[in-house]
Amino acid sequence: MSLISEAGSEVSSHIQERNGGLEPGEGQGPVRELSLDECVALLEQYQVVRRETEFLVDPLTAEDMLLQSMPDASPSKWHLGHTSWFFETFILRSYLPEYAVFHPAFHHIFNSYYNTLGQPFTRAHRGLLSRPSVEQVFAYRCQVDRSIERWLTEEEVTREQANLLLLGINHEQQHQELLLTDIKHAFSINPLAPAYCEDPEFEGDTEAEPPGEHWLSVPEDNYTVGGEGEDFSFDNEGPAHQRYQPAFRIASHLVTNGEFLEFLQDGGYDEPRLWLSDGWRWVQSERQQCPLYWRFIEGDWLQFTLGGIRPLDLNAPVSHISYYEADAYATWAGRRLPTEFEWEIAAWLHCKKDAAQRANMLESRNFRPVAEPAGVNQIQLMGNLWQWTSSAYGPYPGFRASEDAVGEYNGKFMCNQMVLRGGSCVTPRNHIRISYRNFFYPHQAWQFTGIRLAGDWQ
Amino acid sequence: MSLISEAGSEVSSHIQERNGGLEPGEGQGPVRELSLDECVALLEQYQVVRRETEFLVDPLTAEDMLLQSMPDASPSKWHLGHTSWFFETFILRSYLPEYAVFHPAFHHIFNSYYNTLGQPFTRAHRGLLSRPSVEQVFAYRCQVDRSIERWLTEEEVTREQANLLLLGINHEQQHQELLLTDIKHAFSINPLAPAYCEDPEFEGDTEAEPPGEHWLSVPEDNYTVGGEGEDFSFDNEGPAHQRYQPAFRIASHLVTNGEFLEFLQDGGYDEPRLWLSDGWRWVQSERQQCPLYWRFIEGDWLQFTLGGIRPLDLNAPVSHISYYEADAYATWAGRRLPTEFEWEIAAWLHCKKDAAQRANMLESRNFRPVAEPAGVNQIQLMGNLWQWTSSAYGPYPGFRASEDAVGEYNGKFMCNQMVLRGGSCVTPRNHIRISYRNFFYPHQAWQFTGIRLAGDWQ
Amino acid sequence: MSLISEAGSEVSSHIQERNGGLEPGEGQGPVRELSLDECVALLEQYQVVRRETEFLVDPLTAEDMLLQSMPDASPSKWHLGHTSWFFETFILRSYLPEYAVFHPAFHHIFNSYYNTLGQPFTRAHRGLLSRPSVEQVFAYRCQVDRSIERWLTEEEVTREQANLLLLGINHEQQHQELLLTDIKHAFSINPLAPAYCEDPEFEGDTEAEPPGEHWLSVPEDNYTVGGEGEDFSFDNEGPAHQRYQPAFRIASHLVTNGEFLEFLQDGGYDEPRLWLSDGWRWVQSERQQCPLYWRFIEGDWLQFTLGGIRPLDLNAPVSHISYYEADAYATWAGRRLPTEFEWEIAAWLHCKKDAAQRANMLESRNFRPVAEPAGVNQIQLMGNLWQWTSSAYGPYPGFRASEDAVGEYNGKFMCNQMVLRGGSCVTPRNHIRISYRNFFYPHQAWQFTGIRLAGDWQ
Amino acid sequence: MSLISEAGSEVSSHIQERNGGLEPGEGQGPVRELSLDECVALLEQYQVVRRETEFLVDPLTAEDMLLQSMPDASPSKWHLGHTSWFFETFILRSYLPEYAVFHPAFHHIFNSYYNTLGQPFTRAHRGLLSRPSVEQVFAYRCQVDRSIERWLTEEEVTREQANLLLLGINHEQQHQELLLTDIKHAFSINPLAPAYCEDPEFEGDTEAEPPGEHWLSVPEDNYTVGGEGEDFSFDNEGPAHQRYQPAFRIASHLVTNGEFLEFLQDGGYDEPRLWLSDGWRWVQSERQQCPLYWRFIEGDWLQFTLGGIRPLDLNAPVSHISYYEADAYATWAGRRLPTEFEWEIAAWLHCKKDAAQRANMLESRNFRPVAEPAGVNQIQLMGNLWQWTSSAYGPYPGFRASEDAVGEYNGKFMCNQMVLRGGSCVTPRNHIRISYRNFFYPHQAWQFTGIRLAGDWQ
Repeated sequence: MSLISEAGSEVSSHIQERNGGLEPGEGQGPVRELSLDECVALLEQYQVVRRETEFLVDPLTAEDMLLQSMPDASPSKWHLGHTSWFFETFILRSYLPEYAVFHPAFHHIFNSYYNTLGQPFTRAHRGLLSRPSVEQVFAYRCQVDRSIERWLTEEEVTREQANLLLLGINHEQQHQELLLTDIKHAFSINPLAPAYCEDPEFEGDTEAEPPGEHWLSVPEDNYTVGGEGEDFSFDNEGPAHQRYQPAFRIASHLVTNGEFLEFLQDGGYDEPRLWLSDGWRWVQSERQQCPLYWRFIEGDWLQFTLGGIRPLDLNAPVSHISYYEADAYATWAGRRLPTEFEWEIAAWLHCKKDAAQRANMLESRNFRPVAEPAGVNQIQLMGNLWQWTSSAYGPYPGFRASEDAVGEYNGKFMCNQMVLRGGSCVTPRNHIRISYRNFFYPHQAWQFTGIRLAGDWQ
Repeated sequence: MSLISEAGSEVSSHIQERNGGLEPGEGQGPVRELSLDECVALLEQYQVVRRETEFLVDPLTAEDMLLQSMPDASPSKWHLGHTSWFFETFILRSYLPEYAVFHPAFHHIFNSYYNTLGQPFTRAHRGLLSRPSVEQVFAYRCQVDRSIERWLTEEEVTREQANLLLLGINHEQQHQELLLTDIKHAFSINPLAPAYCEDPEFEGDTEAEPPGEHWLSVPEDNYTVGGEGEDFSFDNEGPAHQRYQPAFRIASHLVTNGEFLEFLQDGGYDEPRLWLSDGWRWVQSERQQCPLYWRFIEGDWLQFTLGGIRPLDLNAPVSHISYYEADAYATWAGRRLPTEFEWEIAAWLHCKKDAAQRANMLESRNFRPVAEPAGVNQIQLMGNLWQWTSSAYGPYPGFRASEDAVGEYNGKFMCNQMVLRGGSCVTPRNHIRISYRNFFYPHQAWQFTGIRLAGDWQ
Repeated sequence: MSLISEAGSEVSSHIQERNGGLEPGEGQGPVRELSLDECVALLEQYQVVRRETEFLVDPLTAEDMLLQSMPDASPSKWHLGHTSWFFETFILRSYLPEYAVFHPAFHHIFNSYYNTLGQPFTRAHRGLLSRPSVEQVFAYRCQVDRSIERWLTEEEVTREQANLLLLGINHEQQHQELLLTDIKHAFSINPLAPAYCEDPEFEGDTEAEPPGEHWLSVPEDNYTVGGEGEDFSFDNEGPAHQRYQPAFRIASHLVTNGEFLEFLQDGGYDEPRLWLSDGWRWVQSERQQCPLYWRFIEGDWLQFTLGGIRPLDLNAPVSHISYYEADAYATWAGRRLPTEFEWEIAAWLHCKKDAAQRANMLESRNFRPVAEPAGVNQIQLMGNLWQWTSSAYGPYPGFRASEDAVGEYNGKFMCNQMVLRGGSCVTPRNHIRISYRNFFYPHQAWQFTGIRLAGDWQ
Repeated sequence: MSLISEAGSEVSSHIQERNGGLEPGEGQGPVRELSLDECVALLEQYQVVRRETEFLVDPLTAEDMLLQSMPDASPSKWHLGHTSWFFETFILRSYLPEYAVFHPAFHHIFNSYYNTLGQPFTRAHRGLLSRPSVEQVFAYRCQVDRSIERWLTEEEVTREQANLLLLGINHEQQHQELLLTDIKHAFSINPLAPAYCEDPEFEGDTEAEPPGEHWLSVPEDNYTVGGEGEDFSFDNEGPAHQRYQPAFRIASHLVTNGEFLEFLQDGGYDEPRLWLSDGWRWVQSERQQCPLYWRFIEGDWLQFTLGGIRPLDLNAPVSHISYYEADAYATWAGRRLPTEFEWEIAAWLHCKKDAAQRANMLESRNFRPVAEPAGVNQIQLMGNLWQWTSSAYGPYPGFRASEDAVGEYNGKFMCNQMVLRGGSCVTPRNHIRISYRNFFYPHQAWQFTGIRLAGDWQ
């Protein structure tokens, strides 16, 4: 995992990597220390992200922050504690002299899945942790923040340590997104349908035209994918490697609610031939008849959003879709889902540098996908919704998980999950990258997931 | 169900009933109204119970009050709302002119199991109701209280209506007990082992002698059981009826932790011959190896209590025992459990009038069973722990559930459950009666349940 | 358990028992031996029952005899082996000198639930025992039969041992009934709907009039119930004991298919108020909409029988009914189910001595319930169908299970089950008694169960 | 799917395909008919395979042939019927004039998963089909065989139809393997541990040396994989397509029982860090402590085989391994599993033409994996055991399932399963190909599965 590049080594750009550049191996060469300026810059980055998390829980009551509506989800309070635990465990306990842990039991309570560090507290029971209180968890965060500040300003910090801090910052950004998807799921079960945010302008159909069917064509070639380079990336994004890619085309927009409604009204949920075998079993056992947050009330299709129950916006992208639904829709439409490599190659070719900056992401404060402009020139590969790909999540050639506890971060999930790309309306802007690989089980739909179609060259 | 007796009719005493007295049938004769004095007395009774509920949640945070650790249990906040809903639904909406419900959705949210009144909110999801907030639920209680006060002081109240109010008061007392058993279960799962109450004196073995084995003997006869008479009782306690009872004996004390520890150390949990067939399956599927709240830590037996984790008091009664465990213990001890009629007959014969007043019950504020004094003269049939009987919960001869919604109160549970008698350390004193029938499934142990042995005459 | 009475002791008749006669305690007095004549008579009794079992499997192929359609049921072949194992285990291995077991693994394979005798083979896997083959199991039976013959004719047999043999004979009769109910369930799942027997006359509605509503009235009194006396009975039928019984009435006939169809067509399966709480959960989780073997095909109600799929006979008793359905029907009809004591008292008062001989039972070879004649004088309490009572299965006063392995026979099931009375169309005639207590879980319907209503005196 | 090539079109060899040759699209061009000679050759091929199936069930009794030990497995009798149903459904009913189905219900009973053809009979209930009897199923086979013979010799057969017949023949070969793996699983549960076959020579450790660690090295390149060409192949093996492959090495032998025992004895099953996240959950929920058929009896490791329980052969390949176990072993060994493309490229480079002919496969009649000779030159990529790859089962670029019922054959399973390569000791020799893709869920171990390690170039 190449997090922060060595000063002066001038990491090859992505283009260079595609010409065969190799990353310096882990642990090779001297582990130089950061300058104070670098430390201060890091601290600021740290503080911005930490404040954002606290901003996101601001609309929530202490009771809201305890909700856990299913084992896949976690209470907001737990997210607050766990992200702090990450810094305490991997940095402060190791690198800050005389650091005293905030509470001995927190190590058990806020460990997510690092078996290396001892038996974690039962995941499905996180919603039972009324204690520690929200106040105590904020006090915990506060101690961790002050200690990180002390460490970065008073201690000698190596690049390897700084990389761990960067990992923790990115880890916290992941939990910002989860915090929102989890509270959305919990609120959706409440008959009062609480709103996380007010959204007065969002009153149903956007006036925009439906985006229509437009395609980007990509010629066959050997492409380099993965491993972005100079900035932070997760270990699962690398190594950069070459792929032969046949020609393909990829849709310039996400499938809309209106398009998906056609599938539904055409009997899509009742026709086994459209579904993967496991998907059909899922439809039957869950009695699935529409996307997770759609509601059919008195003859109208509505949707539960972070702003409460709203009319279904037919021009906005269909969201909270399982892989099974995405695949069935693609089959019904006579198309297919893209592979993760097709998505990535299309993004390298067509995304402008500031694509994420202009996309509908967390900082847009929409907390929902918005309708996309029509036309192939308007392609918005990033933002709005995570896009299911037909690629099972696995290791890239040459991938090796690191052997310490951090090694449990990504590698052990490389089975039974599918890759999603592009980030969503609740992903932080500077968290997403073209090479970023998200992954979920094919039945899961509580994330902000959507559908982008692909096809073979024709 | 005879709740409040008709003025002047001088309901026959229990002794009279045993001579064959019949209760006046429901709905027979004129439904006379209460005097203002009677109404004021009722109001005071109402207010005392309502205040007690609020007293009991005083040590809890808003987060604590949201906890639901299993579908059998409910959040404290839900108990607060549901008990208010009962008054609103069965009294205010019917009898208080122009009463406006506090919130239209509360009828769905706070209905427990009255299918007659519409589909109740999914029981297992009560812990997801972060909204309404605790404050809103208290506001709800407040509106209900003010409205009940207005109704009792301004409207004409019939005896039948007053009986419904009494039912609601008793219903709330039941939920006081459940509120404590439920929060105990939820806290027991938290690694921090929160204490509901401080209990500085409770530091393990009481100095009292173990109570030893003493027996009360009861001769054979035709006895009248059930249906106490002049005061409130639940419909399932009647009708009073005659039973022929062979001679029997019943233990003067509850089985202690020390005695149960012998069973455990004798391999009781590993010997299928001691267990009912269903009990043995339960032991194996749950991997049960000790009572629910016992903890074996570093060589010592401790117990989780409402005061936190404490040493096991060997002289105190063993508590939180399933019926399966109670039966297996009795088999191991060469005894048996009493029938509910044996328990009741023994109580009629041996309990003094003020037995409940002197017992360890909710108002004792111990929130745990305490050691009992030795000797047959010290018999404490009531209080401390609900005592499993070998009687399946069923209707008494002539029992008929009423046909309105209140008819769902008791009758529909008359299958698969066992009767418990006597009240516990968290039962309100004026809630318990000799004829009182509690009932739970044989695998359930989160209530304050214990073991009293019986035997045939020898 | 009083199985065979001591010669010359002239056990008191049932009437005498009601006057307080006590049975001689087990193990009291000398254990006298049987005469050769007694042994020969026993042997004949044994052989008749053994031959009947083999007669019953005659229509079955080796494949049929392997079917196990649910863990509650067992393959016919297993029944054949298990009943032989019972004699081998409890008699031959103990009392026949130099008896060599047929196969060492059979002790594991054919043990049903006697934990005392070692871990039984997993119940749910009995359908996987293609080996031993049917031929081997018959060879096993043959060795056991020859050995029993040798034991009875060559060894000295005590009364206690003879009682064990009688227990084994009655045990085998129980399995004759199970064998038929189990194969019926297995065949019912096969799309070919195989017929166990031909039944050409059974072509739907009998011409008989529907039996109509007639009631037997029974006055209040102290009655003696249980423990029949001179002949074999199971331990759970005793001790005989006194019960005070209020006046009641009981229906002279079983509820018919036609009557139950009215319940169904009145929306009985959709109305939660008619059901016990656990029953309603059962209806919903199983999506139960009619009795187990009813089929609604092209607008007609049919039923699966041991003679294949046939038209529903509206005048025949409704069969294969769970306790939940029986209770819901009784509630809908404004009646209730009888207690097991009411049933027994009615039977003592109204059943003629040869009631079982004239009833529709196994030897009638109908293998299905038949329509009953109309009128109160035609009361047929016995035969046709086991009748659910509202009594939970528990020990009679003074009951004690014996401490050896046979003690696991009945006692350990005394929880969560309901008593059924009267025997069925597949119960052997000389197996049933007025005091006979059958028991099943309230959700179970694959036995030949039916509904007899009762009511309070009016 | 290109099954039988057009006469005279001289299908490009694999080498040609690698240069970019494209297969003719389905349905393109005229659908010419087969000559009588071709038909006769096809008929012989058909008959050989049909006879082999019947040979395989020869050691089984009718009872054995009914066993279904889990929903994943099917009874032998069902395999016999289903393979005949395939020919009847896809060929005879469509192409043989006036063909009369053998039995109308068989279409429901013997349909496996073709939803297009109507609701299949519940998979988990196949073991309840005592009827039709084995004799009837053989009569069914006989009618189908005679009809196929008539069709091939009397009707005009197009290439498309002949391809369907070839598909049916290959389908039957797949069921030959399943028949053996399924009966092995069923027998393994029987305490009598029946042997399918005698195997007197197999008495434990082979004398051969353990094969040791040898590696094949493969250089990086663009390779063509998939889509073999002139002979039959399944649709999921194509289209042939190009892959860029970095350099890698692959083990010359399968991991042995002895090697896997080291993993086990090193605590492999107790160390979460070695396992995928889902794998560790599987280990815990199944309490998995060794491979599926290993038995630890009185201090010795044995294994259940089709020849009964035998000593564990330390030099033979470890078999009946789940993907989770294979991956954990590879992690423990510091290696990884190969991708399916690495396996295939290695096979193209190193397998001789007659590799399958010399391998330990079905016709070897070992019915178990055998020890492999030592040394890199002895590489046996094919036979013995299916080898888990790290590739999730998905579509090759350009894959499209056909739209008729046959289209359900492979495509709908392309989710959640992993690819296995190479064939096993119970795969027919002429059924396997280098391009052959088998697939199972990662937790499944009842197939003859094993482990081949791979590594990156070093």
